[in-house]
Amino acid sequence: RILLFLHQNFTRHAPPQLLKRTLDSLKLGTKRNILQIQPDTKLIDALNIFVEFRVSALPIVDSNGVVVDIYAKADCLSLARERGYAKLELPVLQALTHRMNFEGVQTCSQHDTFGDVLEKIIGANVHRLIIVDQQKRLQGIISLSDILAFFIGK
Amino acid sequence: RILLFLHQNFTRHAPPQLLKRTLDSLKLGTKRNILQIQPDTKLIDALNIFVEFRVSALPIVDSNGVVVDIYAKADCLSLARERGYAKLELPVLQALTHRMNFEGVQTCSQHDTFGDVLEKIIGANVHRLIIVDQQKRLQGIISLSDILAFFIGK
Ligand SMILES: Nc1ncnc2c1ncn2[C@@H]1O[C@H](COP(=O)(O)O)[C@@H](O)[C@H]1O
Ligand SMILES: Nc1ncnc2c1ncn2[C@@H]1O[C@H](COP(=O)(O)O)[C@@H](O)[C@H]1O
Repeated sequence: RILLFLHQNFTRHAPPQLLKRTLDSLKLGTKRNILQIQPDTKLIDALNIFVEFRVSALPIVDSNGVVVDIYAKADCLSLARERGYAKLELPVLQALTHRMNFEGVQTCSQHDTFGDVLEKIIGANVHRLIIVDQQKRLQGIISLSDILAFFIGK
Repeated sequence: RILLFLHQNFTRHAPPQLLKRTLDSLKLGTKRNILQIQPDTKLIDALNIFVEFRVSALPIVDSNGVVVDIYAKADCLSLARERGYAKLELPVLQALTHRMNFEGVQTCSQHDTFGDVLEKIIGANVHRLIIVDQQKRLQGIISLSDILAFFIGK
């Protein structure tokens, strides 16, 4: 069975140092064609991207490419609860202002180790980290889905 | 623009009682072809379903169709952290025993109101509820993705 083959293969070659390698060297995460929005993107346009492309979050990026915030699928829940149809034409950043306990966008560098990224995702209890450079410019995304696929060797 | 049309259309027809209507009457959630696993399904087989079908969780169902637990994509994180390759051949239920602060599977009924479902999802901080009947047998799934698509009228 192909699954079993992959699994055994992966097990045999998994170096104990795997957690010490960088995202970059493991080619972990998505680096191209990142779906992103701007601070003034209308909420309705963001929601349509979710439905069309089945990603779970969109980084909000300013005109210099710097990641300023993130809009996740879960953020639409409050809209539904408040029957916030009127808000759909608002800029996405404005729709996020009431968000509670928000600790800022969780990011990492492509030079971070796989182990550090795992700890950060678990510690922050998030589904993904945004990969940024030293100037906080968007470089990519690493999500649970990527880690899972990597883990089973796909 | 079609988005604008949909949005305006939806706004006009959205009854204020929307939150009081049942999932059933709104046809909200997925009721057919629910991807599910058994307590003795091997972890590796569960992970492969995630990668192949891009759903975010699998209800664990016993031989009577009763929902006994749930395996979510996020549950694989601990595996990756512990380099748990050896665990991939374990039954999924066994791999879940160390899970902390787990309050049981969050479920709802197809006769629950949309408002109640929203409150439960927000309160339990989960991505989806499993829809069950009075005997806790699997009926379907309602996830953030469904609510989002419904909200923008798609
Ligand atoms: N905004 C985004 N743009 C492009 N790809 C993304 C985005 N968010 C997540 N992904 C990738 O899409 C896949 C599924 O992501 P997710 O549904 O967020 O777990 C993973 O390979 C992610 O790296
Ligand atoms: N285990 C599953 N089997 C079948 N459909 C599912 C399952 N989990 C979620 N879905 C549906 O798949 C879509 C995306 O779900 P999710 O990625 O969990 O937000 C939604 O329409 C869900 O109702």
